[in-house]
Amino acid sequence: MSTEHSFILKLSCADRPGIVHAVSGFLFERGSNILDSAQFGDSHTGEFFMRVHFQQVGGDPGIDALRESFATLAEQFGMRWELHDANVKPRVVIMVSKIGHCLNDLLFRYRTGQLNIEIPAIISNHKEFYQLAASYDIPFHHFPLTSGDTKAHQEARVLEVIDESKADLVVLARYMQILSPELCARLQGRAINIHHSFLPSFKGAKPYYQAFDRGVKLIGATAHYVTTDLDEGPIIEQEVERVDHSMTPDQLTAIGRDVECVTLARAVKWHVEHRIVLNGSKTVVFR
Amino acid sequence: MSTEHSFILKLSCADRPGIVHAVSGFLFERGSNILDSAQFGDSHTGEFFMRVHFQQVGGDPGIDALRESFATLAEQFGMRWELHDANVKPRVVIMVSKIGHCLNDLLFRYRTGQLNIEIPAIISNHKEFYQLAASYDIPFHHFPLTSGDTKAHQEARVLEVIDESKADLVVLARYMQILSPELCARLQGRAINIHHSFLPSFKGAKPYYQAFDRGVKLIGATAHYVTTDLDEGPIIEQEVERVDHSMTPDQLTAIGRDVECVTLARAVKWHVEHRIVLNGSKTVVFR
Amino acid sequence: MSTEHSFILKLSCADRPGIVHAVSGFLFERGSNILDSAQFGDSHTGEFFMRVHFQQVGGDPGIDALRESFATLAEQFGMRWELHDANVKPRVVIMVSKIGHCLNDLLFRYRTGQLNIEIPAIISNHKEFYQLAASYDIPFHHFPLTSGDTKAHQEARVLEVIDESKADLVVLARYMQILSPELCARLQGRAINIHHSFLPSFKGAKPYYQAFDRGVKLIGATAHYVTTDLDEGPIIEQEVERVDHSMTPDQLTAIGRDVECVTLARAVKWHVEHRIVLNGSKTVVFR
Amino acid sequence: MSTEHSFILKLSCADRPGIVHAVSGFLFERGSNILDSAQFGDSHTGEFFMRVHFQQVGGDPGIDALRESFATLAEQFGMRWELHDANVKPRVVIMVSKIGHCLNDLLFRYRTGQLNIEIPAIISNHKEFYQLAASYDIPFHHFPLTSGDTKAHQEARVLEVIDESKADLVVLARYMQILSPELCARLQGRAINIHHSFLPSFKGAKPYYQAFDRGVKLIGATAHYVTTDLDEGPIIEQEVERVDHSMTPDQLTAIGRDVECVTLARAVKWHVEHRIVLNGSKTVVFR
Repeated sequence: MSTEHSFILKLSCADRPGIVHAVSGFLFERGSNILDSAQFGDSHTGEFFMRVHFQQVGGDPGIDALRESFATLAEQFGMRWELHDANVKPRVVIMVSKIGHCLNDLLFRYRTGQLNIEIPAIISNHKEFYQLAASYDIPFHHFPLTSGDTKAHQEARVLEVIDESKADLVVLARYMQILSPELCARLQGRAINIHHSFLPSFKGAKPYYQAFDRGVKLIGATAHYVTTDLDEGPIIEQEVERVDHSMTPDQLTAIGRDVECVTLARAVKWHVEHRIVLNGSKTVVFR
Repeated sequence: MSTEHSFILKLSCADRPGIVHAVSGFLFERGSNILDSAQFGDSHTGEFFMRVHFQQVGGDPGIDALRESFATLAEQFGMRWELHDANVKPRVVIMVSKIGHCLNDLLFRYRTGQLNIEIPAIISNHKEFYQLAASYDIPFHHFPLTSGDTKAHQEARVLEVIDESKADLVVLARYMQILSPELCARLQGRAINIHHSFLPSFKGAKPYYQAFDRGVKLIGATAHYVTTDLDEGPIIEQEVERVDHSMTPDQLTAIGRDVECVTLARAVKWHVEHRIVLNGSKTVVFR
Repeated sequence: MSTEHSFILKLSCADRPGIVHAVSGFLFERGSNILDSAQFGDSHTGEFFMRVHFQQVGGDPGIDALRESFATLAEQFGMRWELHDANVKPRVVIMVSKIGHCLNDLLFRYRTGQLNIEIPAIISNHKEFYQLAASYDIPFHHFPLTSGDTKAHQEARVLEVIDESKADLVVLARYMQILSPELCARLQGRAINIHHSFLPSFKGAKPYYQAFDRGVKLIGATAHYVTTDLDEGPIIEQEVERVDHSMTPDQLTAIGRDVECVTLARAVKWHVEHRIVLNGSKTVVFR
Repeated sequence: MSTEHSFILKLSCADRPGIVHAVSGFLFERGSNILDSAQFGDSHTGEFFMRVHFQQVGGDPGIDALRESFATLAEQFGMRWELHDANVKPRVVIMVSKIGHCLNDLLFRYRTGQLNIEIPAIISNHKEFYQLAASYDIPFHHFPLTSGDTKAHQEARVLEVIDESKADLVVLARYMQILSPELCARLQGRAINIHHSFLPSFKGAKPYYQAFDRGVKLIGATAHYVTTDLDEGPIIEQEVERVDHSMTPDQLTAIGRDVECVTLARAVKWHVEHRIVLNGSKTVVFR
């Protein structure tokens, strides 16, 4: 079975009998074959979530025609929905400051095909990764935040690149500036951030030094969608690594960076494979 | 949304357009509401797998009526299928020899409701766990394999208990006898075994001593369905734990036992929640 | 090499040249052979930590004579130290309320020799686990906290049992009462508590429901020494388990319990093997 | 406490009383302060292992003088030993073929200081990673294995680069050629290889396809020292990652690559920090 001309539909709506039947009927009538599919009903909120990966067997109507005809069905059930061509690589803009482990990790996964994406732009408030960007032949935009410049102006330039790049996703790969509420709102549901996480958690600066002082035995990271409350958006993925008493704050930081890489890479992969559906302040991840 | 009067349907058949539509239509017509559902199409074999957890909203026809009417649909698609009442606790017979960590773990999960099962019988070729069984008020059957007795005769007694217990599942919780091909065949798809696993794997006796000699850094366990090739049946779950050079073979064995407990408990839980579908020599696990 | 008549020395003191030399000289002069040993110097605090497991090869002076002669050396370096006979099983009193997974887990590890301890008493403010205690032939003390009784009086009875049991360690295996500052002080360094942990952490009641609402992807547990700030004592061990969007608060709770079991069991094992040395508000664990 | 002018001593010898005392005495007499230290006695073989990280407090005699004076002590106990200046970066030559995830991972850890090493050369039998090497300003040696060339000749050129680079360690970062027994012998104890690992293990070609066919639930990797039996040398580190039924052989391969990266990176780090001592066909790792 070829996977060419396949599509991914994801949707959510208030749960009620007949949703799966209606969607599968829509696909059946158009000669689609379901490659894989998953549903989830949240019994606490009464919301229903669905992801379907399907293939056009009997003729390909094109994604625009599919979208147009599905819109009628979607309206009937009050669905929030997206329909994607699985062969079109999502366009991901990466933002970074001075710490580059996540950027390097994403670039290598991109080059080796582990992340099936386009990277039309890398944006930074620093110059550090210009050469790294160039070695991958990716345009690098240096938008510093200096005293002479205002944050609003800098963010306007950032947004311009995001818009011109037709970015499907913005990844804050250790971009160390707090985004304005306006920019957060503009990127709602299509910007992913990564940050360290601990048990217990620590507020304030130098978290790895706090973790060191507290003597934690696990170091973790959380990838989440960006909301106006920067570190509190819907969680996509979390991971931890074991540490011990002999490690310095620098070693904890290094381990934390490894965890951040794998956690962010998984979150990006699931997003660009359209596996994540928002459920209020939480995520449904169809892994 | 109450979860009373809910049912679980699992099925597999050759993939083709319209399966999900047919099944969801069947449910929709009978006033069922899908609580959660998952499908998987194996593009290598062309097989399709589905699990649906649904609830009767508009009147409860009873499981026999549901089965009867679904049989017609199932035949049309050549489905292998099972329909279970989610409120009926599966009946699990546990077999054990002289090493009881898995038995104790399963019993405690049973008592505390983590495993929603009945345990109508514990069978052993040794007497060690008679009192443990009695403390849980579970009948204990001691069928020794002594020189005066034949294996065939002993297995006949085992099978008699399994049959009279109306066992849905037999768990070999460190039952250290090789089952005859006949008994394996009788228990096909409804008997789970647990054994140690290593990277690399070791053949022969005293595996933890071999692992010690080889200096492995991970100790693992595999839970699988029983087939005539005792340790080669379809894998359900695997887990590992970290070890190091300072550990004795006895310590490796102790860690191995902990891993066996959690691995077996997960496999049993998934089986009794009807989350596992056989796919040739492999399993599809709808976690 | 037999491990009979072996001893464990653990110590800490201000770091300076010559400590290892002095300790190893002390042992060499008395015909001791070091079986294994570990040291750690905390370069941030200037504290030095050491654990030595040694065997008497040429004659056994007895632990009292060893302690008496080591005291002179210890004074010279200003050491905090303990010397234990490795053949004497530590005496562990377990306290529990109504949730028994940790108790059951510890009891089974005790019976099967994974925890090389004596359990002279189980103390509870509830009656639930009387029969479980009895099935292991362990005295069960029911000290309820009822309106007619005062907490001070109840704790006096608890302490009486701990003292009469000559307890080396008290394990709060889900004992759901906050200990008074006085009792915490009395048990300083010899009482271990277990509690759930999350990234991020949650304050207040029903933490698994909060974790559910937040959509976390990892559930964890922390074992720590008891201090007057009940959940903030020196961390001994932490562990996590993966969860997902499909799980109910009850399922999160069940997974959390499994994590609590293994985390607490490791902490208890390391304590009774004298592998933990306090380092201010942190622990050094010589695994 | 500064860590400048610090040294690492690692040794092994037949166990007997007085080893730690003699070594610590040697250091004490020379005004050394032990920063951290670990010992391990293998009760099965009677071998003793030790690693000491120490600092010169009262005057620095230089590493040559230290080595010369330690040699006398070492001879007395029949020690195999190494003494390293902790400030000298080990020189690591990386060999690679056409699959570059491990190479890229090591290079980034090198650049960001997570691996405190020099990389004087990258050797490959293919041209793929010439530009990657150049972007890190590291000499790239392309030694193909073509029909016109003999393996012996190619290996002679490889060895020439290793020797001229004064390599302390050779990392086979997915170098897909079997080394000759002669080259293996020459690199004994200073060459690390990485390969996939499974439970159970699979022999022969296309292991990820075999793992797919067998339906494994864990994918792993093993890093080990190179011996003439290429995949059977002393194990340094092992790691696994979870997979499931929905993954294609390509996805299993991608996950396997991630596991290989972290496993190899840890093994290299421990080696260059002089944390690994060979114990026959096993390793002692002082983490």
